Amino acid sequence: MKINAEKIWAGLVRIREEAPLIHNITNYVVMNPTANALLALGASPVMAHALEEVAEMVQIAGALVINIGTLSEPWVKAMHKAAVRARELKIPLVLDPVGAGATPYRTRTLHRLLAAAKPDIIRGNASEIRALVVEGATTKGVDSSAASEEVVGAAQTLSRDHRCTVCVSGAVDYIVSGERVLRVLNGDPLMTRVTGMGCSASAFCGAFAAAGSPPWLAAAQAMAIMGIAGEKAAEKAAGPGSLQVYFLDALHNLTREQVDAALRIER
Amino acid sequence: MKINAEKIWAGLVRIREEAPLIHNITNYVVMNPTANALLALGASPVMAHALEEVAEMVQIAGALVINIGTLSEPWVKAMHKAAVRARELKIPLVLDPVGAGATPYRTRTLHRLLAAAKPDIIRGNASEIRALVVEGATTKGVDSSAASEEVVGAAQTLSRDHRCTVCVSGAVDYIVSGERVLRVLNGDPLMTRVTGMGCSASAFCGAFAAAGSPPWLAAAQAMAIMGIAGEKAAEKAAGPGSLQVYFLDALHNLTREQVDAALRIER
Amino acid sequence: MKINAEKIWAGLVRIREEAPLIHNITNYVVMNPTANALLALGASPVMAHALEEVAEMVQIAGALVINIGTLSEPWVKAMHKAAVRARELKIPLVLDPVGAGATPYRTRTLHRLLAAAKPDIIRGNASEIRALVVEGATTKGVDSSAASEEVVGAAQTLSRDHRCTVCVSGAVDYIVSGERVLRVLNGDPLMTRVTGMGCSASAFCGAFAAAGSPPWLAAAQAMAIMGIAGEKAAEKAAGPGSLQVYFLDALHNLTREQVDAALRIER
Repeated sequence: MKINAEKIWAGLVRIREEAPLIHNITNYVVMNPTANALLALGASPVMAHALEEVAEMVQIAGALVINIGTLSEPWVKAMHKAAVRARELKIPLVLDPVGAGATPYRTRTLHRLLAAAKPDIIRGNASEIRALVVEGATTKGVDSSAASEEVVGAAQTLSRDHRCTVCVSGAVDYIVSGERVLRVLNGDPLMTRVTGMGCSASAFCGAFAAAGSPPWLAAAQAMAIMGIAGEKAAEKAAGPGSLQVYFLDALHNLTREQVDAALRIER
Repeated sequence: MKINAEKIWAGLVRIREEAPLIHNITNYVVMNPTANALLALGASPVMAHALEEVAEMVQIAGALVINIGTLSEPWVKAMHKAAVRARELKIPLVLDPVGAGATPYRTRTLHRLLAAAKPDIIRGNASEIRALVVEGATTKGVDSSAASEEVVGAAQTLSRDHRCTVCVSGAVDYIVSGERVLRVLNGDPLMTRVTGMGCSASAFCGAFAAAGSPPWLAAAQAMAIMGIAGEKAAEKAAGPGSLQVYFLDALHNLTREQVDAALRIER
Repeated sequence: MKINAEKIWAGLVRIREEAPLIHNITNYVVMNPTANALLALGASPVMAHALEEVAEMVQIAGALVINIGTLSEPWVKAMHKAAVRARELKIPLVLDPVGAGATPYRTRTLHRLLAAAKPDIIRGNASEIRALVVEGATTKGVDSSAASEEVVGAAQTLSRDHRCTVCVSGAVDYIVSGERVLRVLNGDPLMTRVTGMGCSASAFCGAFAAAGSPPWLAAAQAMAIMGIAGEKAAEKAAGPGSLQVYFLDALHNLTREQVDAALRIER
């Protein structure tokens, strides 16, 4: 399948028309910007983590996005329950393995989640993806440090082991499904100075999947739209404060012409 | 009682003079923008949810605002304790039934809260208000979907059953107390693309009540000031990112002349 | 030791070069702006509070910052464990006693934390610092109300009792270590209308300590850089909304020349 500006744009149009409900079980740091980014995209966010309601919330959602950024046991239990229910209902499931490798608890939790319910898309930075594959790989907190090219091998292993699309975000975003590798070149370095951009990208993977795109395409749409909106924002921004503001404005106002002109995607 | 610009403005003046402490037990997504909106209004926010301290925190507060957006059992227990204490102390109590109807757990929790402590003001969108009255009404997450006019009947039932003011926010805000209905027409559609605007409106109901307004007037003041600040922000905003920024600036700088010129309120 | 613009600037340069990982166990309201402020400063934030991982997260961090703003028992247990581990590893420890005095639970929790692990720096407003020293002192929520000059005595007592640097923020920031008192005059009143500015200041104390500054200097660097970035932001801001945006931009772009021209520090 050829992924071009028309296909990227079509996904955004469907989100704007359908406003799919995206159920996020995510971390405290990024809940607000994730909700705002989903709204600016055209989707409807809901955050809910109580064991008493996650199964029923998943049921009315178009996708489930799990992000372990500020995990703790009650939340992990809810993530399990929601993820298993999403699989039963064939609702798209995205996993963001924030800080994988930073502590044994994170890595262990991720392996258990992966064993309980296979996600359609795993999106993380290079260190996180590597930590899910390479025993003993370490992460410096939630930042990326592994060589970007090297990580494609790890992403392919992860993709094959769990039969899912793996998206490695960084200066270049790699979208990996088995042997296939797609590179999204959009984005701006200033985006790394704003917390939660990666988490929003994971939520966008869920939104595009909820709007009917298969995982591989949904990940490409998410990373391209994130990157293009980030570039538009960076053109005007004087720093990371104004970047956040203009990012939401750019997302809300994104046009077909802007996507056509800016998209940089390669096989 | 006639509600005009003078009465709306008088409430804001009192908040700015007295900086009442507003105790919020609210959801993770909106804690930050709610605190910032209360500060921009002139009030003093405090967020506290530990069972060990909520009763004592309520005691030093001018109002208690309970919002169930990201509820879980420990938080629900604290909401109960704080709400009961607020009633004992005759401290104004506002309830924001976020996502009522989305899951049985939410609706059940709300009915129990309402049975334990009657709020002075319930503020929600049309779907949420309807779900509190109509058995089996459903909500698509936290968005509104019920017909706005139809919901006035539900709000009147709710108002009579719980002897409180019910505020239904939407394109038109309805403030209902028994048979009386007030309509606030201020606001801008772009406000619906920013998360937490409704939650801030609930917090504002608490702030105006803390400054001495009876529930009916406090709700009108809250919705009018929210709406007018939102309109001022929308005049300058290029999207939902800049709307948030200008909303806080507009609130902080709001003048009597702006309120006089912009207020649109009808019986 | 003379603290001048060169010394303030040298700390910022080291943070930008080394991007130290700052482990925050902080409150829900300010997690997002704290992470963004640390990123704009040049540091790497991580938020983690699970008992299962805090000891290992501290181990890879350059500093630990504990803020009790929205405390509850599971969090307090994690704060204890992380603080004790930080002391064992000689990793700088900062304590932000948000709302000390507002409820007995807060004051009791703080005394227990102080007994378990001595921080290098305690940063709070005048009411909070006073509440840690004076039995029965009360706080109106999280705002400051004690007379700023009077509080220096309380800060000196606290500093001697716990052998740490105490930073009292307000219109003038006092940095107290035993008998020594430093005054930082930078800042702008509009900063008090944005939630989390004090919490970011505490996180900055951690960042400068992680970059190698002794506590006394780290606190001075943190308060000076906060204040100068706040002044730059206030020059352009139209209210508290735009202040937040420009504050992050100013931090990110701060130059040696700006620090030289703006620094106002006195013994």
